Amino acid sequence: MKLLEALNWRYATKRMTAEKLDNKTVANILEAARLAPTSAGLQPVHIYVISNYEMKVKIQPIAFGQPQIVESSHLLVFTSWDKVSDERIDKVYSQTNKQRGLPNDVTAETVAGLKQLFSTFSLEEQYHHTSKQAHIAFGMAIAAAAELGVDSTPMEGFSKEGVDEFLKLREKGLRSVVLLALGKRKADGDWLLPLKKVRQSMEEFTTEFK
Amino acid sequence: MKLLEALNWRYATKRMTAEKLDNKTVANILEAARLAPTSAGLQPVHIYVISNYEMKVKIQPIAFGQPQIVESSHLLVFTSWDKVSDERIDKVYSQTNKQRGLPNDVTAETVAGLKQLFSTFSLEEQYHHTSKQAHIAFGMAIAAAAELGVDSTPMEGFSKEGVDEFLKLREKGLRSVVLLALGKRKADGDWLLPLKKVRQSMEEFTTEFK
Repeated sequence: MKLLEALNWRYATKRMTAEKLDNKTVANILEAARLAPTSAGLQPVHIYVISNYEMKVKIQPIAFGQPQIVESSHLLVFTSWDKVSDERIDKVYSQTNKQRGLPNDVTAETVAGLKQLFSTFSLEEQYHHTSKQAHIAFGMAIAAAAELGVDSTPMEGFSKEGVDEFLKLREKGLRSVVLLALGKRKADGDWLLPLKKVRQSMEEFTTEFK
Repeated sequence: MKLLEALNWRYATKRMTAEKLDNKTVANILEAARLAPTSAGLQPVHIYVISNYEMKVKIQPIAFGQPQIVESSHLLVFTSWDKVSDERIDKVYSQTNKQRGLPNDVTAETVAGLKQLFSTFSLEEQYHHTSKQAHIAFGMAIAAAAELGVDSTPMEGFSKEGVDEFLKLREKGLRSVVLLALGKRKADGDWLLPLKKVRQSMEEFTTEFK
């Protein structure tokens, strides 16, 4: 589908059929998220891709019992760095320079500036920053799913602490951000499907200066 | 372009030609952002669309002198609510219900729950929350631009206070979040264009539970 058509077709699917998506389709959606830009190219985002039924059953109560968790084909758990440490900044820039065949001194000033910047952020602000980057990738994944005709449910309604604990995220230096259930809409059981998609008008949404 | 092809084609354009995009193209990109999902459907996002040259000249020093600000066709300033007040929640749900032909009592419980939830957030946390929603729309706009073959530069490097003051955002209950310059790449003057796009490998980016 063309993107605008796809974005009009999509909606926050409330009930799914549990039908399995093929691996290539899921890989395509993840690839869109992987290609998302991130501030200063730090890529502080990691996605857990859960198709294991028993795990989804255990996550469901941490997410207010939402049926899409278990009715999805794949549940994506978007996570981001708990903090932007000097070591992480060094590692990303060093890897990027290596892949580009550049010496690290070409980015030394940028790296020093980033370390200085994040040293002024509280730990919570560092997480908010990385979490925002995860939301860009989240937008890309939702768009990619819609383009492929795959239903999805963006979910912020869950216990972040519960998911962090279940997936042992804090031990890995990560924290949960948002969930995205991927699957196929169960058209006859979904109360939201017949309701109009409501957005601000373009006039309310934008202010133009020509 | 297909989305994945477009996401591989795009890059954070450092120099633009100042060529003007036609209105329909810009409207298409804004429409993708408008259709982005937001947590609980609150739509706490507003975009300033600046094609006025004098205004871009004034914004440039607030954004570390980045040339794309003035070389862009349109500069989008993504903003979000400074706070999630009871009044704003009421207004959005009341408008949504009206458009759906539903009485407000069908969402009374949801609305009460949201008011309770946000009452536990500090003002700064409320802004972080709305800012995250703006990042979803930001991702959609970047994807839509790329699909249309339009170059863009996502920019977090600017003084948020400076932009808030210049556009008098705080008086409108808004705060700046991110900038997106839209335009056409100036291929021969852009140092980033010849460099390899670097991302984590899919193995680094994801953890699978089958």
